[in-house]
Amino acid sequence: MQRLALGQRKSAEFIGECRDMNITLKSCILTPFLFPLIMESVLLHARKACPFLHGNNMAALRQLAAKKSSSGLLLKANQCPVMGAAIQTRGVHSGAPAKNQEPFSYEGFYRHMLDKKHNDKSYRYFNNINRLAKKFPMAHLAHPTDEVTVWCANDYLGMGANTLLLNTMKETLDRYGAGAGGTRNIAGNAELHLQLESELADLHHTEGALVFSSCMVANDATLSTLGSKMPNCVIFSDELNHASMIEGIRHSRAEKHIFRHNDPEHLEQLLQSVDINRPKIIAFESVYSMCGSIAPIEKFIALAKKYNAITFLDEVHAVGIYGPRGAGVAEHLDFDLNAAQPRRGNGGIMDQIDIYTGTLGKSFGVVGGYVAGSSQFIDMIRSYAPGFIFTTSLPPVVVAGGKACINYLKHSNAERRMQQLNARTVKSRLGEVGIPVVPNPSHIVPVLLGDAAAAKLASDELLSKYNIYVQSINFPTVPVGHERLRITPSPGHTPEMIDHLVDSLQDIWNRYGFKRVADYEAEGGRCNVGDKSFDGVEPMWTDEQLNYNLRIEESQQTTSAI
Amino acid sequence: MQRLALGQRKSAEFIGECRDMNITLKSCILTPFLFPLIMESVLLHARKACPFLHGNNMAALRQLAAKKSSSGLLLKANQCPVMGAAIQTRGVHSGAPAKNQEPFSYEGFYRHMLDKKHNDKSYRYFNNINRLAKKFPMAHLAHPTDEVTVWCANDYLGMGANTLLLNTMKETLDRYGAGAGGTRNIAGNAELHLQLESELADLHHTEGALVFSSCMVANDATLSTLGSKMPNCVIFSDELNHASMIEGIRHSRAEKHIFRHNDPEHLEQLLQSVDINRPKIIAFESVYSMCGSIAPIEKFIALAKKYNAITFLDEVHAVGIYGPRGAGVAEHLDFDLNAAQPRRGNGGIMDQIDIYTGTLGKSFGVVGGYVAGSSQFIDMIRSYAPGFIFTTSLPPVVVAGGKACINYLKHSNAERRMQQLNARTVKSRLGEVGIPVVPNPSHIVPVLLGDAAAAKLASDELLSKYNIYVQSINFPTVPVGHERLRITPSPGHTPEMIDHLVDSLQDIWNRYGFKRVADYEAEGGRCNVGDKSFDGVEPMWTDEQLNYNLRIEESQQTTSAI
Repeated sequence: MQRLALGQRKSAEFIGECRDMNITLKSCILTPFLFPLIMESVLLHARKACPFLHGNNMAALRQLAAKKSSSGLLLKANQCPVMGAAIQTRGVHSGAPAKNQEPFSYEGFYRHMLDKKHNDKSYRYFNNINRLAKKFPMAHLAHPTDEVTVWCANDYLGMGANTLLLNTMKETLDRYGAGAGGTRNIAGNAELHLQLESELADLHHTEGALVFSSCMVANDATLSTLGSKMPNCVIFSDELNHASMIEGIRHSRAEKHIFRHNDPEHLEQLLQSVDINRPKIIAFESVYSMCGSIAPIEKFIALAKKYNAITFLDEVHAVGIYGPRGAGVAEHLDFDLNAAQPRRGNGGIMDQIDIYTGTLGKSFGVVGGYVAGSSQFIDMIRSYAPGFIFTTSLPPVVVAGGKACINYLKHSNAERRMQQLNARTVKSRLGEVGIPVVPNPSHIVPVLLGDAAAAKLASDELLSKYNIYVQSINFPTVPVGHERLRITPSPGHTPEMIDHLVDSLQDIWNRYGFKRVADYEAEGGRCNVGDKSFDGVEPMWTDEQLNYNLRIEESQQTTSAI
Repeated sequence: MQRLALGQRKSAEFIGECRDMNITLKSCILTPFLFPLIMESVLLHARKACPFLHGNNMAALRQLAAKKSSSGLLLKANQCPVMGAAIQTRGVHSGAPAKNQEPFSYEGFYRHMLDKKHNDKSYRYFNNINRLAKKFPMAHLAHPTDEVTVWCANDYLGMGANTLLLNTMKETLDRYGAGAGGTRNIAGNAELHLQLESELADLHHTEGALVFSSCMVANDATLSTLGSKMPNCVIFSDELNHASMIEGIRHSRAEKHIFRHNDPEHLEQLLQSVDINRPKIIAFESVYSMCGSIAPIEKFIALAKKYNAITFLDEVHAVGIYGPRGAGVAEHLDFDLNAAQPRRGNGGIMDQIDIYTGTLGKSFGVVGGYVAGSSQFIDMIRSYAPGFIFTTSLPPVVVAGGKACINYLKHSNAERRMQQLNARTVKSRLGEVGIPVVPNPSHIVPVLLGDAAAAKLASDELLSKYNIYVQSINFPTVPVGHERLRITPSPGHTPEMIDHLVDSLQDIWNRYGFKRVADYEAEGGRCNVGDKSFDGVEPMWTDEQLNYNLRIEESQQTTSAI
């Protein structure tokens, strides 16, 4: 499965790169100094790798190219199963425009792109979900009396409805108004922004932090700035990395290598293939959103040291939730040390990560993203990243809410404990009735459907018949055959809500005969469900850390105040 | 000046492209089908254009390239004044790594990048500005009792402090909490988002609209999606376009042509050079932030029709401020028609723009960005743009504030009238004392210093001695020699504040002998200041539209309630 996903991505990248080459070359009219050097190597490489090209010698290709009409060359290219498709998709023309060609239809193009989405069933219909602060985790649909329980939000701890947060925000609205009024450089840099960045640096044990509009922007801006500015940079990226990191890497135009999901051996092979003296970034996430897997952070750190790379760790789905102060998985790995000495230089794993990124929009309840790292790194990104420089800064009201939330969660474990307990309960209850959950050590509960239509049907039925909202996750977010319901238990979900969720899923599974664990087992397993060779996973929060038996009552009491 | 700016940009692009070519070629190991064809043309072109290469024949270059060590080629390349510098900056290596090379120092690299900023004086120090809602346009500095008047914010109409907005937001916080809790596809699509998008579509007379985290993201995501998906797309971009559009165009990797600022003749020349059948986007802004110039929208529309291009109009610095309902300059051009028939299909200019982008973070008082256009265009961007799809949606509280503000400004002209009156007053008062204002038809008051140190000194003195905050604008935001103070009068600035601003600038100009209009006149003019051949400009808001004499009193009454 991982190989398949890698193959699909490589193919898409390959077509993109062919096109990039075409366009870049066309627009570059000067300095072919490095050109002949590279061209020889490319041709040589290509003749080895391309079974079609293999049968054509270079002289013949040059002859084809030399003809005024390049139709001969195009004819040959069209015969290539890969390039032929690319040419048709991308509409590469033969040079001279056809005289009687229809003018380009923009509306026709938009329609064509939408048809593609409808045809491959990846067209998305948004549900109308209005999450109610006073009734977390409930929401109303389009009609205000139509209420449902939300089981798939990323406001993981319900902090968006926390009274402390809401009061802080209302006071900030009164004091500093609704918007920032400018970029950080022009009228949009307030004391609150500086305080939030100090709070974040303290959270991650780093020298500094920098706030962005979102972590989408933080990841994109940081990776594209580093990758494009560091001379000859190479980026190593986990194959399941989020779109924001893929975008950043693509925008950097740096050389990239994609390693198999959470696979240090593959990463090391790729690291070995690159000149040790080149700057290198290993980019990965701690918790992967769609499957709940957790990266082998220590192994990646060891490889980074061995090969003089830096680590870029996205803790978006972990901040607030893992670690004694909610700094994420890197903090959780030294739980007791970080609880006792929550500071930089305590000798723990946190000090060995070069760059953290995170969000204010999930566990921290508001919106926005950030990076954290060394002072000089932060100052460099602050000074060079267009995505940071040229945009209105986050409103003081949002910044104040985020800061209050981070600070609160540094001192309260009740919410994250209760969330983990509920996640454990949902996983085990579904396991008892044979409803397939992709095994993972985190708070995510991916219920496997393995089919796009089935996943959509299950989601629609939950909403319309059981007043439960769980969005179905289909291709391209997950590979075809891995379609799922992604359930995110929160500390606010009650035992009754859990009962209702499990009963509703049971009903639906019974009604439609959706595959159960035993069915996947019979076919040899999928996504580690029903896979007898799979070792199983230990939850990241251990029983001891959860104080499993003792703290349930306490947590429920605390979270009922949310 | 425009030519100079274009030259500088071209040089930067050129170096970037050489590097892109290098990297793209290295990473593309297949399919050199189009390669020989393009290479011959590139070499031919380069030999014509490059005075250095001219003296080297192709055979010699190939020989150099064929050598196992490419030091000969690099030696030659280093002699090239352009390529030599690029090689040094980019750290292009000779292929085989030196055995005794030092490991790459990441901290050393960050320091080096910061040193560059310090050395060319473009390093930015952010002022600590805390804008006070109850005292708009006042703010406090780091210490809460240290108050200053803000004269450079982009909360153009002071709506961020508007009671209607603040009350709406507080009610929304109570009802729907602090954050959206997910992407638009997963739990983050509320009725409020849909209503805001309807409000925006109604504002711009379009079929639909789509909200993003910011207009930085909206511009980047929209242009990069269109430019990369439309087969063989070409983008024509005004040379002074905002970084967000430049980023989007760069990320699209589409062919681009940069036309001289607001120059339809140059745009037409460039349009003529491109196959009529290729999809084409003309990307420009209505009001340019740093100089206050306004695009010849009707001429650009005519060219778009003639050459079957679409128009992409960024109204970021115009929404809320121009037009009878605050839809921007396109609406303002048919002021009476749009006031009488504020809807799509009224036969005005608005219907002829294909794509609008705008922000919620300036006149609309909160944060966020959007695009507006045809239903199918909007649905296509919604379905394909990673910057839209893969990010937490704007919090309901922000969405509600933006929606309330847009709706309010559709029905109230008082704020924008008063803003224009204040801008006129500031411009004419400065003109009377010979302090140079770059002439323009908009609400922006760019006071020319023409020197980076002078601009910073003026800004620092205003803040420290006169309690006035105006950020200085230096290279690279404006070209060297065009440094300025960018003043943005709002409806909230009182006559006393205007007096104090003018007196303070007078003091500073007297003390340091900064150049006045007469000085620029003596040297032949700069940025149209003191340029005798310059025709002058008519303000976009006419006397009649402002109801010049009658409405001052009324406007002041209304805005005092802000």
